[in-house]
Amino acid sequence: MKLQTAIDRVSLEDAARLAKQLDGKTDILEMGTSLVKDYGNEAIRRLRGELSQTSLLVDSKTIDEGAYEFNQAFHHGGDIVTVMGAASHATLQACYEVAQKENKTMMIDLLEVSDEKIAAISNFPEAIYALHHSIDREDKLDAVGSVADFHQKFPTIKRLAVAGGIDLPQVQKLAAQDLLKVVIVGSKIAKAADPVAAVKEFMEAIHNGNN
Amino acid sequence: MKLQTAIDRVSLEDAARLAKQLDGKTDILEMGTSLVKDYGNEAIRRLRGELSQTSLLVDSKTIDEGAYEFNQAFHHGGDIVTVMGAASHATLQACYEVAQKENKTMMIDLLEVSDEKIAAISNFPEAIYALHHSIDREDKLDAVGSVADFHQKFPTIKRLAVAGGIDLPQVQKLAAQDLLKVVIVGSKIAKAADPVAAVKEFMEAIHNGNN
Repeated sequence: MKLQTAIDRVSLEDAARLAKQLDGKTDILEMGTSLVKDYGNEAIRRLRGELSQTSLLVDSKTIDEGAYEFNQAFHHGGDIVTVMGAASHATLQACYEVAQKENKTMMIDLLEVSDEKIAAISNFPEAIYALHHSIDREDKLDAVGSVADFHQKFPTIKRLAVAGGIDLPQVQKLAAQDLLKVVIVGSKIAKAADPVAAVKEFMEAIHNGNN
Repeated sequence: MKLQTAIDRVSLEDAARLAKQLDGKTDILEMGTSLVKDYGNEAIRRLRGELSQTSLLVDSKTIDEGAYEFNQAFHHGGDIVTVMGAASHATLQACYEVAQKENKTMMIDLLEVSDEKIAAISNFPEAIYALHHSIDREDKLDAVGSVADFHQKFPTIKRLAVAGGIDLPQVQKLAAQDLLKVVIVGSKIAKAADPVAAVKEFMEAIHNGNN
């Protein structure tokens, strides 16, 4: 299991400073959608420039114009780009073809996607499927339970991630559960008083296991 | 019926030049999602600066973090901002509250939204509901037929728009049909050899009626 640390709703200066601090200390750095929409491709280039040992995920949340958005995000420096599972199958296909051609990765954000739709879009073997709980919803995510349920319902989907208010105790349980490819942590690292100390705790929780 | 002209997949310089040319000649100028993701808020400010008589729509395609994204887009100069109908009801509610508070407008993009979900999100009376056909799909939109069907299925939704490969003959039929608040035209104006001549034809087709 890899640790993805998400940065959101900060200035580009603060995001770049945090990226520099976290380089080599998190497996993947996520440039959150707020940075995509506030700063555009400039932010991808800027964060890319701060990272030498950590992969960069661009949380584009593409839902149309799949080839254009994926080409742009990879071209400017992303290693992994997100598309919404709520997009049409044609959009997902277009994103996947770009990712495969560029030898990079598509992550499918399953926010508000029905089981029926998940079944219909389960045919992208190299993609990472991310269970995601909206930040705007008041109910909270049971990450371990959600991952177990998902794995039971969709056993052919092998590359899983989870996001949405994940904290250290949840990461410890997810590491023990051993079903995820990526765990996504946001504010518990990026908004911590000491993000470097926080990321170290999360990485230890993940990589002291045998993943 | 109002004319919304969408600009997409061009440089910010070209977009700004086109915005200046179209100011006062289209009712609404749409800053397409490609400009949002390529340039961020700078593009909103730049296009806003070119417009004195035309409203600015920011095609943010928000699907999470509703209040943050809507506040940002309005703050930087948008008059209308889009949210995906595929978002959670909580996200739509958050966007709507910001739009109402700012005395601005939310447009709901109904791309890939089921009838069941439309019924569940039909309770935003001041929002504009936009029927939208993915640019990535190979099948084409029958705009007049889609609007008629939608109106019959959801008669309580009064503020309608339609987007997806709309051309002049379709606009003439949509004007005669008289069910739309906004018709959205992209490449047929923005990629025309002479966009100013093209927008004039579309505006005449719309406003020579009694809408």
